[in-house]
Amino acid sequence: MSDAKPHVIVGEDSLKQFCTRVLILIGISPEHANAITGSLIEADLQGVTSHGVVRLPIYVQRLRAGVINPRPNVQVAQETTTTAVVDGDNGMGQWVAIRAMQVAIYKAQPGNCAFVSVRNSNHFGAASYYARMAVPHDMIGISFTIGGINHMTPWGGAQAMLGNNPFSIALPAGHERPVVLDMACSNAARGKIIVAAKDRTPIPDNWATGPNGETTTDPVQALKGFMLPVGGPKGYSLTLVIGLLSTMLSGAAFGSEVTHMYEDLGRPQNIGHLFGVLPITSFEPVEIYKRRMDKAIREIRDTPRAPGVERIYLPGEREELLAEEYRRTGIPIQKSVWMELQEVGNQLGVTLRHD
Amino acid sequence: MSDAKPHVIVGEDSLKQFCTRVLILIGISPEHANAITGSLIEADLQGVTSHGVVRLPIYVQRLRAGVINPRPNVQVAQETTTTAVVDGDNGMGQWVAIRAMQVAIYKAQPGNCAFVSVRNSNHFGAASYYARMAVPHDMIGISFTIGGINHMTPWGGAQAMLGNNPFSIALPAGHERPVVLDMACSNAARGKIIVAAKDRTPIPDNWATGPNGETTTDPVQALKGFMLPVGGPKGYSLTLVIGLLSTMLSGAAFGSEVTHMYEDLGRPQNIGHLFGVLPITSFEPVEIYKRRMDKAIREIRDTPRAPGVERIYLPGEREELLAEEYRRTGIPIQKSVWMELQEVGNQLGVTLRHD
Repeated sequence: MSDAKPHVIVGEDSLKQFCTRVLILIGISPEHANAITGSLIEADLQGVTSHGVVRLPIYVQRLRAGVINPRPNVQVAQETTTTAVVDGDNGMGQWVAIRAMQVAIYKAQPGNCAFVSVRNSNHFGAASYYARMAVPHDMIGISFTIGGINHMTPWGGAQAMLGNNPFSIALPAGHERPVVLDMACSNAARGKIIVAAKDRTPIPDNWATGPNGETTTDPVQALKGFMLPVGGPKGYSLTLVIGLLSTMLSGAAFGSEVTHMYEDLGRPQNIGHLFGVLPITSFEPVEIYKRRMDKAIREIRDTPRAPGVERIYLPGEREELLAEEYRRTGIPIQKSVWMELQEVGNQLGVTLRHD
Repeated sequence: MSDAKPHVIVGEDSLKQFCTRVLILIGISPEHANAITGSLIEADLQGVTSHGVVRLPIYVQRLRAGVINPRPNVQVAQETTTTAVVDGDNGMGQWVAIRAMQVAIYKAQPGNCAFVSVRNSNHFGAASYYARMAVPHDMIGISFTIGGINHMTPWGGAQAMLGNNPFSIALPAGHERPVVLDMACSNAARGKIIVAAKDRTPIPDNWATGPNGETTTDPVQALKGFMLPVGGPKGYSLTLVIGLLSTMLSGAAFGSEVTHMYEDLGRPQNIGHLFGVLPITSFEPVEIYKRRMDKAIREIRDTPRAPGVERIYLPGEREELLAEEYRRTGIPIQKSVWMELQEVGNQLGVTLRHD
């Protein structure tokens, strides 16, 4: 490992074993730890580093502080034939989300659409992981969550009342890969502003506002301010509605009730989600649907390209291609993240080795 | 009416009577005509002029050309307890959408979520009109449609393969107004580029590309090119997925199958939609949900404001306030639209009077 390289390459299995071991040592059952690790590592494999092992240190901190329950009893609190409210018992968001999506898929098996709302959960990582769970069942999967930090203001506001709330929709295809939308509602990732602040370079004026709610190109002011929503008022409306969908059907925290995942280690977060599934077979013969999806995907991919564009990607395709590559080559972990993981490992006596 | 004013003020009832009369004279039944007019006028009342009576002339053209069926037999082609596929029989999109949403609401009455896909429909106007239909039933309403024109390219593409596909989600509240998201996936409305081209003023570089797929600030080139999606690749993914949701569950037209609503009067469009409803009572006691919604809405509205901001609006609030005003004062109709409506009226012997 050269100090000049910004990344450390770690094999998928090494990273999985490390994370699972850490979670078990902190009190999580092996079954749960395996499931949670699956979601984390999948994000890193797909290059969605913001929702992978970078989060392990804060999860460990929150588990140690007693504000995440390592042994949750996730239960259906209320249900109809096609809906349920799942109480996550303050467990790890990944485990709660997997269980809730399993309930939705089960309820949809007779050909019904099904929706499951969730309360008393925690940050669940990548929304697409749960939407994708529906795909092998020939169902469209839908996943909404409220974010674990209020980073955004209502349009025109000067106080963070809204998370950068992500959602995902996954559609099965036939021979082609599934189409997987997974987006949050800000114009830029906050990490890019952190980098600009370090480099002292100005940022585009649609990335963030300063603390008074006016747009800024100064990354230092931006970090004291708020993230700007995609398309201005459109993104504000979108993040607000995703937040409401994720919380109002279950009694999860919204707005001023949302605590800061990193800065408030004194209370559980009561994060909410909403999951939905639409079984293809209720609407169309699966074979016809899949043939049409494949045709649509190929048409999009084969669209004449703008100058300099090498390839047109479908939503989720780039991530799957990257995952295939990283499964072979190992996963690049940012050096700062590597150091944090080492620290977590040292505290618990677990070693993480790079390739 | 002074020639200097860009608008003509028309009373809600006059406009309704005119549209209904026109639709009846073109062969649509009074019941259908009333329902269709309700959707059109509501859009104008809300200031969503792009989906109101501005569309009447093209609807009349398409009805006259025989590519919209004035007397459709809208039927459920396939169903389960909680899903249906509705065949619109090539009827007016507004009528088909109202019927399909009624099916969804009916199927959700026992406390189930319900989704209804639609094929053989046409341009349906404002997506929010149908999502809002769920609100008086204490249900969350969801409405997706594919657009009637391909205006957008896949990200990196140089050929229009995608509509600027809109969607709407409407959430009931208690004493407050419902929260209604209604958005399409482009950064700007195409109408703004038309205005800039007339005024010979440059446009921001994130509104559109020229015909080769490269971004442009020249509105004339932009009109020959493609609309740019909100947030770049995010908006591309969003419009693609909305298009797929609206068509793949029913066999409606997608991609190269989509004909041009204005330029191709030789064929029916086979437009597709998808509607969904989530009954609150399946998840939470309605009173608790409404109390929490009201609290959330008030918190958002009362957020400290950025300098110069007079008021923070909730999604859909501005539109409802405008509708209340226009119900009293009459609806401002753009003079060019007024002239087109007069022409339609003259052809059919119907008079539209301004106030």
